[in-house]
Order: sequence, then C-alpha cells, then structure tokens
Amino acid sequence: MSRILRIAGAQMGPNQRAESRAAILARMISLLEQAAAQGAKLVVFPELAFTTFFPRWPMDRDSPELLACFETAMPNPQVQPLFDRAKALGVGFYVGYAELTPDGQRFNSAVTVGPDGTILFKYRKIHLPGSDRVKEGQRYQQLEKMYFQYGDMGFPAARGPAEWGAPVLGMLICNDRRWPEGWRVLGLQGAELVMVGYNSAAYDPNGGEGESAELRTFHSTLAAQANAYMNATWAVTVAKAGVEDGAGLIGGSCIVDPNGIVVAQAKTLGDEVILADVDFDACRQGKEKMFNFAAHRRPQWYGPITGQVGATPPA
Amino acid sequence: MSRILRIAGAQMGPNQRAESRAAILARMISLLEQAAAQGAKLVVFPELAFTTFFPRWPMDRDSPELLACFETAMPNPQVQPLFDRAKALGVGFYVGYAELTPDGQRFNSAVTVGPDGTILFKYRKIHLPGSDRVKEGQRYQQLEKMYFQYGDMGFPAARGPAEWGAPVLGMLICNDRRWPEGWRVLGLQGAELVMVGYNSAAYDPNGGEGESAELRTFHSTLAAQANAYMNATWAVTVAKAGVEDGAGLIGGSCIVDPNGIVVAQAKTLGDEVILADVDFDACRQGKEKMFNFAAHRRPQWYGPITGQVGATPPA
Repeated sequence: MSRILRIAGAQMGPNQRAESRAAILARMISLLEQAAAQGAKLVVFPELAFTTFFPRWPMDRDSPELLACFETAMPNPQVQPLFDRAKALGVGFYVGYAELTPDGQRFNSAVTVGPDGTILFKYRKIHLPGSDRVKEGQRYQQLEKMYFQYGDMGFPAARGPAEWGAPVLGMLICNDRRWPEGWRVLGLQGAELVMVGYNSAAYDPNGGEGESAELRTFHSTLAAQANAYMNATWAVTVAKAGVEDGAGLIGGSCIVDPNGIVVAQAKTLGDEVILADVDFDACRQGKEKMFNFAAHRRPQWYGPITGQVGATPPA
Repeated sequence: MSRILRIAGAQMGPNQRAESRAAILARMISLLEQAAAQGAKLVVFPELAFTTFFPRWPMDRDSPELLACFETAMPNPQVQPLFDRAKALGVGFYVGYAELTPDGQRFNSAVTVGPDGTILFKYRKIHLPGSDRVKEGQRYQQLEKMYFQYGDMGFPAARGPAEWGAPVLGMLICNDRRWPEGWRVLGLQGAELVMVGYNSAAYDPNGGEGESAELRTFHSTLAAQANAYMNATWAVTVAKAGVEDGAGLIGGSCIVDPNGIVVAQAKTLGDEVILADVDFDACRQGKEKMFNFAAHRRPQWYGPITGQVGATPPA
C-alpha cells in the first residue's frame, strides 16, 4: 500500500484586527481550494487562524471583542463553510483557534479534521509564551499566559485515516516547536507527521533591540528540521505572516522530511500554498536504526527532564 | 569581568590501527600547540582520540590488542606528554578515550582538563550505538555495545575555572549529540558550553546502501545547531575524520553559538584546528527569555520521556 500523501501548508498573510471573520474565512477557503486543485489531501493552517493574533492587545476578559475571538464549539456556524468546502473536496486540515469551553476554560487549541469532515483529534497548546499580565507602557503585549490556560491534554497522537496511509499524526502549536520535549513525546507515540501552526514576531514591535527577522526565521526552520530528524518524522510548520496590526510576523512556513531537509518553504509573507508529496514510509529507516528508541534510549538518566522545571547551575 | 574564551576544536585525521600510540600523541600535541599559538585556552579533541575507532574490529575481550586501546588511569605514562604540554601552555582540553577501571569496567569516556593540568570532570558515554555482538559475514563491525558498558554517571556539568569566566561546562560523546535528552539534562544545569567528540561513519564500510557523507555531515551539524539553540549554549563538536582502517569517517567539526549559528567549521578530513572567541554571556538572552526554563517548561506533560524507552504507536 502506498503511504504517500500530498500535503499543503496554507501560509496566511496577516489578519487585521478590523477585518471581518467572513473575509478571513473566505481567504482560508481560497487557500484550501488552491491546495486541493494541486492534489493536496491535507492542508495545514496557522495558529489562531480565524482572527488576528489578539494576545498582542490588552482586552477585558469579558469584553465582546475578546469573546468574539473565541470559538465556543468546533465547528460552529462561523467556520462551517470551511468544514463544508473541505468535506466536499475530500480534503482534511489542521487549524488553530482560540477555544472557549462550555465551563469557561480558554485554550490556544488546534484540531485536525479528516477528509470526511469529522474531527480526528484536538490539541491544547502547552508551551504558552508571553506574560500573564499587561506590561505597562508597552503598546504591544504578548498575553498568551493571561488569555489562555496551559494545555491539559498532554501531547496526543492519533492515527490518520486509511486513505491517507494511516499515518501517526501529532500536533504542536507555535512556541511548542522550540521545545524538544513535545516532539519527543510525539516521537514516543511513533509520530510520522507533526503539524505546527504559528504566529512569531519578526521583530520587537515596541521598537526595542532584538533579533532580526532573518535570524528568527532561521530559528523556526532549525527547530523544525532538527526535531523532525531526531524523531524520524515529517513536519509541516505554517505561519501567519506579514505585518498584522502594525506588528511584523515571520513567514518561512516549511515542510521538512525525516532527514531534517526542507523540501518546501514559503517565499512570501502573504497567503501562499506550499506542497510536498509526503512518504510516511520514509520515516522507517530512522525509526528502525539511528532513532530506534527501544534499542538506544536510556531514560534512567533523563530524570531531570521530568523532575525539575528550571535550570539549577552548579555552585 | 569578560567571559570571552578562545576555544579550539582539534579535528584529527584518521588513526590507523597499525599506527603507534606515540605517533598519534605527537599529532595531538602538534594540534594543541597550533591552537595555543593562536591564543586558544581550551582545546576539544575527538572521541577515542588516542587510538583507531577499534569497535569496528572484532577482538577477544582479553586480547592484548584490545586491552592496549584502553587507559587504566587518566593520565597515565602513555598520555602524560599531552597533559604536560597543555599545562606548560596553560591550556585546558577535552579528550575522549576508552576507560578500563581498576575493577574491570569499560566505558567510552571523556575528561575535561583545566589549564593547571588537573581533571575538572569526567563523563561516560550513555547513548552507545551499534551492536552487542559480532555480526557474522560483515568485515566492519560497530561493537560499542559489546566493548563498553553504558555510562553510569548521568550527564554531569561542572563549573570551569575563574580564568575561563567560570562557565558551566558539559560533555557528550558522539552519538549522544543526536539525543536531545542529554543536551536538555545539561541545559537544566545551566550549560554554557557543551563539548562533543565523535567518530561517525561517512558511508557503510561494508558497501551497503546508505546515506551520503554529505547528508551525514548535515545531520551532525544540524543536531549541534538545534540543541545548542534550544538550550541557549555554545557547542563544540569535533571529529576524527577521513579514511581510517579503510572505513570513512565524516569531518565537519564545528563551533556553534547559542543562536545555533555555525561560527567555525573544519574544511578538511584531516588534522585541522578551528577556532572561535566564545562569549559565555551570549547565552544569557536565550536562558532569560525564550528558553527561560523556569517560566516556560511543563514537566507534568513530559512523563513518557522518562516513563518509557521505546515508541508505542496508537492502534
């Protein structure tokens, strides 16, 4: 049985704060259709794809503008046209969104949807960056730790449908991709494809010193490459890019093979589809030899990874 | 206080099986002197630097040839000239060697020696690759799991001397560099420099299909870059390179900064010194912001990393 699946990354240009949800959804459906027209069976969208990256703005917890950024069900009438179009095209997708649960919990979440329109699995972001309070005197904030709770589902993997070759799928969100722990927990479930949406600053929007957009894009790509290699998995990382609400976001969306080689990468900071034919069986050599975990891992010496949070340097 | 230290990687060309220990040591002393003449205060040598990579050859456990590959003390008369020359030059070094303990245990080890000639700390390789038995019908073997016991000291870090800026130092050996767990345990001790010696095959010496030398060198460099970045540490990885006993070894020795950028890399497959001025304070930004472990790690979700050895895919 062939286990080759054509996968697309649907990089999005910026979603401005004032933009309507309907206009953003129309762009996403257009990207989906472009990918499907080129034969893609699975399309990866960014983190918080339906809105601007609203954690940059301080808002009251119960303000209508903030609440409008959250989805109270998935799908729901606002996003249903995307689900409907994907099902009609027989295409699955990963999409990131802000989740508000019936009991009032808030998460930075993602779902993967199968070609039949049903949700295969959900993930709630664990590595929330940013601050849990507003920093006074700063125009732009990074309030993920204030707006969201830490993910409470671990790093789940799920088996994709038979028509995709039944690959083991994992999801991460944005900052998670810089943390080898999340990748490894997925690798320990045999992940063959890790999907990651992100919104990553291209520079300090408040005008402070900081790394160049080029260096930040390099970091994003490097993390995907090495963690794909070290877990013998494919990876698809997809940006929301460009200048959003006056703040720059890197692009650099890419598809990486189990050798850590970038096989496709976005060239723009706007809406752009990247594509690759992903052979899940290309993961086998790594999983059976160099990264045969059962043969080579030595967890008795990894204790500090689970036993402590912060660093404790020697005296 | 300046915390900038000039560090050298002393890549070595091959040590042939028939070569004398004295001839190999003379080459190492020459590399040390070249590095010191260019101002280096710390020189990193490869794994198993004093001999050929003998795990490629099946030998009886108690054969004189195998026993001659092991050091029964460190230092010892055979290696004393290296220690003496380094002390006279005021240069420290990392060196890999085969260790035979007084009670008969055997490890693939490394020590870091201070500028005063004393051993700062020792490490015993944890991620042993290869086989624990001879594979019949193969000319070349990889018998690390037969010749060595697994390291039993964890991943220790140590504080370097004040004249180096008191950096937190860590060591890994060869295959360890592909395993993010070892890097993370060092990162959790605040590592500012991770030193790694290696002997890595450039191709299958038995003529089977396999990855190109170019891809293997890319993997080696990628692992160093990403793990340095994700732990906000410098890394120096140093090869024994070239055609040794008829089997090819990659080069690609490199010095990587805490951004994951290669600042120096060997161009040959022979004896070659690479150099960089390593500013340990360049680790601070990463350790305090993006990779502020205390602020961002979520060990409650990392359980499988220590809780299981092999991968267990979903049904």
